[in-house]
Amino acid sequence: MKRLIVDMDDVIADATGQFIQFYEKEFGVRVARESLNHQDEGLGFPGHHDVIQQFPFRETFFRTMTPHEGSQEVLERLNKEYQLFVVSAAMEFPQSLFEKLKWLEEHFKFLHWKQIVFCGSKAVVHGDYMIDDLAYNLDTFNGEKYIFSAPHNLHIHTYPRLNNWKEVGERFL
Amino acid sequence: MKRLIVDMDDVIADATGQFIQFYEKEFGVRVARESLNHQDEGLGFPGHHDVIQQFPFRETFFRTMTPHEGSQEVLERLNKEYQLFVVSAAMEFPQSLFEKLKWLEEHFKFLHWKQIVFCGSKAVVHGDYMIDDLAYNLDTFNGEKYIFSAPHNLHIHTYPRLNNWKEVGERFL
Repeated sequence: MKRLIVDMDDVIADATGQFIQFYEKEFGVRVARESLNHQDEGLGFPGHHDVIQQFPFRETFFRTMTPHEGSQEVLERLNKEYQLFVVSAAMEFPQSLFEKLKWLEEHFKFLHWKQIVFCGSKAVVHGDYMIDDLAYNLDTFNGEKYIFSAPHNLHIHTYPRLNNWKEVGERFL
Repeated sequence: MKRLIVDMDDVIADATGQFIQFYEKEFGVRVARESLNHQDEGLGFPGHHDVIQQFPFRETFFRTMTPHEGSQEVLERLNKEYQLFVVSAAMEFPQSLFEKLKWLEEHFKFLHWKQIVFCGSKAVVHGDYMIDDLAYNLDTFNGEKYIFSAPHNLHIHTYPRLNNWKEVGERFL
């Protein structure tokens, strides 16, 4: 069985949507998702608020994200055909570890805890395929690499692109 | 720089000593470390108490372990000569994640969060060398493997053995 490494934030979890929601709650302004396109993660919010340095350290930020459309169904099918690992670079945010584990238990019940990895650098994991929204995670990977579309990576053309979970299913199932 | 993967429990942290301490607090009996020799992890406690299914789920179990003698000094020196990762199969114990991270921050201040990995299965990590007390973690590793002595692995002769951190230093420094 081939080993498939899948990221969490902005791949199976709608992290961008969570930033927008937290921003709206805090500043009363609903930012359009498209307005974040082609800017690095966390940039593009009015007033240059550094949301990346704020929201991910807040309680419930990781626990209450919405799963990306189709991610649950497609990942459940992939789980039968691949040696699947969910690998998240979570170590920067100590309180996220427990929240992320509980989030996976809630939304991806078919995953065993043996399939979950929380790390700092993804350079240490290896496998046949990796799907991630951040180029620097893909850069150090030994296998085939796919970038999953998010506003902050639309200007990157280094890796084959999967725009949504329908396309993940078409490529891997 | 060669990549060195080092385990936590019973390699840099005295997990066996913590089991003995928790057992004494709970049952009033101080178990001799030597009496646990040559038995699987968690076995050998009087009354066949299944300590493995109990103590690791308790608060402070992972947070209050004692570092193994010499582990801090030797690991700090290894950190300058190797691409060092501390990899712990912690996912089975959800509350351990935060405790383990804080424990590392306290006792191994020289480690960056990028060097820490909490996983379920270690099959997903790769590197040049691995030091672990459990043979099944070494079994799936791609590089050179060393078993670190603990009461529960003294009967295993599959891998070269490092008995303590002095020996780790002699092998790797």
